[in-house]
Amino acid sequence: MRFDIITVVPEILTSPFEASILKRAIEKGHVEIHLHNLRDYVTDNYKQIDDYQFGGGAGMVMMIEPIDKCITALKAERDYDEVIYMTPDGETLKQGIANELSLKENVIILCGHYKGVDQRVREHFVTREISIGDYVLSGGELGAAVLCDSIIRLLPGVLGNETSALTDSFQDNLLAPPIYTRPAEYNGWKVPEILTSGNTPKIEEWREEQAYARTLALRPDLLSEDEK
Amino acid sequence: MRFDIITVVPEILTSPFEASILKRAIEKGHVEIHLHNLRDYVTDNYKQIDDYQFGGGAGMVMMIEPIDKCITALKAERDYDEVIYMTPDGETLKQGIANELSLKENVIILCGHYKGVDQRVREHFVTREISIGDYVLSGGELGAAVLCDSIIRLLPGVLGNETSALTDSFQDNLLAPPIYTRPAEYNGWKVPEILTSGNTPKIEEWREEQAYARTLALRPDLLSEDEK
Repeated sequence: MRFDIITVVPEILTSPFEASILKRAIEKGHVEIHLHNLRDYVTDNYKQIDDYQFGGGAGMVMMIEPIDKCITALKAERDYDEVIYMTPDGETLKQGIANELSLKENVIILCGHYKGVDQRVREHFVTREISIGDYVLSGGELGAAVLCDSIIRLLPGVLGNETSALTDSFQDNLLAPPIYTRPAEYNGWKVPEILTSGNTPKIEEWREEQAYARTLALRPDLLSEDEK
Repeated sequence: MRFDIITVVPEILTSPFEASILKRAIEKGHVEIHLHNLRDYVTDNYKQIDDYQFGGGAGMVMMIEPIDKCITALKAERDYDEVIYMTPDGETLKQGIANELSLKENVIILCGHYKGVDQRVREHFVTREISIGDYVLSGGELGAAVLCDSIIRLLPGVLGNETSALTDSFQDNLLAPPIYTRPAEYNGWKVPEILTSGNTPKIEEWREEQAYARTLALRPDLLSEDEK
């Protein structure tokens, strides 16, 4: 899978892809990340990529022309499945969207910055708008990193143990059950006895009960009506 | 405001704080970010910070002892308002939570990695659990960066124009209206005439209508029943 990320601040995005799971996924060839600096697609000498809003108001707006040039240059080289714009008013990212996008081949991610992009970019170039949540960030860059991370860890071969991602929260609409590791007692705080019993079927049953109870208590919205 | 971020992969978090708005906020002294490598709080020679799950199952669990040592060392130096654990089954981050946390002074953020932390850490050290959305990431690091970004941009003096953050999406439960910048026509695509009319009251009216219409179409859940 290939991601082309278009941004005015590519510097923000270097370290998230140079460490841990994402770094190894790139090194193993499971994914390619290409960062594109929008300023490289500006023709004037000032490298201007933003300008004041029509109609007045605080905050700068990213201009259409450099974005058009960058996307057009990328599309001349290969076909893209999606041109995603990261924006707080997009469709809210859920695990299901990450699952779905993990089946794509080439994806462009456009990061907004300042107040966002000229609306005509959204109408004519963007195929999908995604928000990582109901809050506002300085730009779309961290959102792009989050989106890539949520997708890349699902690609076959990326996680050491293939079953690991499938037992995560949300994959079955349930929160994960509590987990414990050594020591069995710390500061007088003990691990639940069932987990050290060696009785695997009972342990599985306990975990399912815990996952259900936690979901009902913390996130009943994840359960369907007849599961409650 | 001061953030102490506890992580096993501090490398992930370097670039987000070394560019753009967050970098300037740090340079201007509005915020301090301190990254703490959990491996520095391990006493054994292997620098082991995780271990297998009690009861079996895929994925490693972060051990309680290094986390205890790190948090205890930090608390010995100053008081903390919150010890936040980033986890997909925490309370979902919303703009209101970012607003609320922007009034705090000292905050510890603990990043989970692998399958997460030993449950006893959550029960005895963590005061608040936050999720940035209903999806799973490789670790809590990007979530911590997102949380910090959402908070830091609200701190007085961080954004150049104080009014800028207040006109963002979500601050009034409405999505932002569409925005446009020069040129007024591109590829035959024109900016709405009202925005170049110079009639400020009419422009404000149009923006409010657009914000409401977009919210009703895309995110009716943000509106209260009598706003619909």
